[in-house]
Amino acid sequence: MANSDELLLRRQRVLGRNSPLFYETPLHLVRGEGAWVYDADGRAYLDVYNNVPCVGHCNPRVVEAISRQAATLNLHTRYLDENLVRYAEQLTARFDAPLDAVTLTCSGTEANELALRVARAISGGYGIIVSDNSYHGNSTILAGLASSFPGGEAFPAFARAVRVPDPAHDRQGRSDAELAAAFAAQVQDAVDSLAADGIRVAALLIDSFFANEGLPDRVPGYVEQAVEIVRRAGGLYICDEVQSGFARTGDAMWGHQLTGVTPDIVTLGKPMGNGFPLAGLVTRREWIERFGQTSRYFNTFAGNPVAAAAGMAVLDEIDRLDLLRNSRETGAHVRAGLERLAQKHPLIANVRGRGLFFGVEFIRADGTPAAEETTRVVNRMRENGVLLSRIGRRGNMLKMRPPLVFSSADADHLLSALDTVLGGL
Amino acid sequence: MANSDELLLRRQRVLGRNSPLFYETPLHLVRGEGAWVYDADGRAYLDVYNNVPCVGHCNPRVVEAISRQAATLNLHTRYLDENLVRYAEQLTARFDAPLDAVTLTCSGTEANELALRVARAISGGYGIIVSDNSYHGNSTILAGLASSFPGGEAFPAFARAVRVPDPAHDRQGRSDAELAAAFAAQVQDAVDSLAADGIRVAALLIDSFFANEGLPDRVPGYVEQAVEIVRRAGGLYICDEVQSGFARTGDAMWGHQLTGVTPDIVTLGKPMGNGFPLAGLVTRREWIERFGQTSRYFNTFAGNPVAAAAGMAVLDEIDRLDLLRNSRETGAHVRAGLERLAQKHPLIANVRGRGLFFGVEFIRADGTPAAEETTRVVNRMRENGVLLSRIGRRGNMLKMRPPLVFSSADADHLLSALDTVLGGL
Repeated sequence: MANSDELLLRRQRVLGRNSPLFYETPLHLVRGEGAWVYDADGRAYLDVYNNVPCVGHCNPRVVEAISRQAATLNLHTRYLDENLVRYAEQLTARFDAPLDAVTLTCSGTEANELALRVARAISGGYGIIVSDNSYHGNSTILAGLASSFPGGEAFPAFARAVRVPDPAHDRQGRSDAELAAAFAAQVQDAVDSLAADGIRVAALLIDSFFANEGLPDRVPGYVEQAVEIVRRAGGLYICDEVQSGFARTGDAMWGHQLTGVTPDIVTLGKPMGNGFPLAGLVTRREWIERFGQTSRYFNTFAGNPVAAAAGMAVLDEIDRLDLLRNSRETGAHVRAGLERLAQKHPLIANVRGRGLFFGVEFIRADGTPAAEETTRVVNRMRENGVLLSRIGRRGNMLKMRPPLVFSSADADHLLSALDTVLGGL
Repeated sequence: MANSDELLLRRQRVLGRNSPLFYETPLHLVRGEGAWVYDADGRAYLDVYNNVPCVGHCNPRVVEAISRQAATLNLHTRYLDENLVRYAEQLTARFDAPLDAVTLTCSGTEANELALRVARAISGGYGIIVSDNSYHGNSTILAGLASSFPGGEAFPAFARAVRVPDPAHDRQGRSDAELAAAFAAQVQDAVDSLAADGIRVAALLIDSFFANEGLPDRVPGYVEQAVEIVRRAGGLYICDEVQSGFARTGDAMWGHQLTGVTPDIVTLGKPMGNGFPLAGLVTRREWIERFGQTSRYFNTFAGNPVAAAAGMAVLDEIDRLDLLRNSRETGAHVRAGLERLAQKHPLIANVRGRGLFFGVEFIRADGTPAAEETTRVVNRMRENGVLLSRIGRRGNMLKMRPPLVFSSADADHLLSALDTVLGGL
């Protein structure tokens, strides 16, 4: 590992010592294929963390699409391009009415920045409501809104944060209807608090799957009631699908389709180009056009012919490999296995998630959150050749979000390694 | 062209009618090579506009680097990666001390957003000074700062704009020293005006080549004095090299090297990956680390192994093809030719620019800016198979910024077409 130590030092010299790295001993990866990656010593790791390579690391059809288009033409969206139009058509066709148009960007940050601009232009409001343990990007405004990540930017005066209840912890004897009503009351308070400062609400910006909040089990009506309040006050509902989109949840192409409400704006990112920088927002054509009347939006790299080719290949592979079904079926297999492990290992307090996105919460016998143990499990799993991470507001939850090509055999490998690591804690 | 008309309609349905397109009759491009692109009817166009494909459209070595790496591994910067470290080393080695570290992003917008965050964290100030005809990106804040582009966002209360004098118009009998002093006085006024509102200046954010301002001839001391005033007030100098960087100006790798002052932060973009989404900022490692102590910055796609491979191939091609020299020598050839055309066509009031970046200003006999004629020339040049655009505050300047592989033969083709179009106006 001398080579990797040296590489770490070289990295720190040119990127600085605070550029984030995973694991106590950073991993030096050199190759990827399917749901597996390989380090500089040739060791294999099962990837249970990365949702970006959704159709598999180095998916040959995506690589071929990128290579062919990069060798043919790569400019920008101010010329007509068949790739872009076809991709935009295929992407928007996967959304419910009235979501019928798209603006592409390079990153989820750019998509959420643009979504806020569009929401403000359309609503005439300026206030933003977010969840109190969320992350939507790294610009000044988005870093300020983030509360699950130490952004160093002040929480903006035009924003309010609401706390999404986690039924596993916050129920206190309440029914689902009471939990949903309590959340709705918070959203109404946020709207009123903004209004008291003379600020009309422009948008509720949430991930309807609440990934950074720790994937709490869905309470019927949560999102629906919150959205209704915001819309009644003139604001829009922006759903950040950067994590939950592209078949991740197994039951629908988009996380918001598991709720009873269609967003006004959907933002997309991470898995969209299988690693090629591609993101965007989907909304009503009418609104994109209205925004465009006062705001000329151009983004040099976004939606260029290579990005569009990569995005198209990802959609095609999701269909060809039936990854929505795999996400549902393999996801159910993983979930059942995790629940068996929960019977065996008392540290597991609960299992949450849907499709191929899981959280496993660790709580000690005395009821305190087992954050240190979670970190230890993450690092031991890495030593045992399985990559995963942490999630949730107390840092005591495993985050598992593998490429969608994750197989039953991969699932068994994960479950077996987790059983071993938990047994040896 | 029925196919292109149909494509335009399809595009408008999914992207909206305000997604910007070049030319009265949009161009449907299908292939690119070197400094040339080809439309759907097989017609060739000399590209005198696009700086992004700096080492040539579909440069084979860049395509090969992208294809090979995309087939090998593509993740993110939270694992150790030889590509990233090597590229960061090679990139920072091309900067003068004390600029020794880099943070990569996906776009110039993200680079400038991050630069403002770093400048505020390091300076402790909050105010931003920009030029009054600039463009630095499409986020809420950057669109607000933009004045050369109808962003639809309000100019921020924490910002002030200064007007960079254009010696061709603003001299009014003044010497260079007097012009520079007048600009310095504006910058001092901006610092004082911010202070009067209780805002300490964090940064002067400018393109030292002043591309959007119309490439005014450089007045010795302009930038130097402005920077000194800002630094004295505790602020940093952010130089936006998104257009002027990567050998564009012919005399130096970076535009700022043509002035007598090294920036505190340099932002990079467009040509950095020859079309692969890649951008970033270069500053002192010490400052990146200090920023990182309070602000964890992570960017999913930025600096991923494919981005790093693309960036490395671009640097290698700039060296191998000696594009700095080509920019200087072919640029001088173009400039001489443009000046000959200025003798022949009275509409040309002046020629400006450096290396392979030119402006040609059109002014009518009555002294009014010839904006309509400029638009007509841009569209006629497109009909004559040459792609260029407009620039400058009055819209009466041709913008010419070809790929750096632009040859003498390409230059002669451009000059001949421009002569024809100007003769036929």
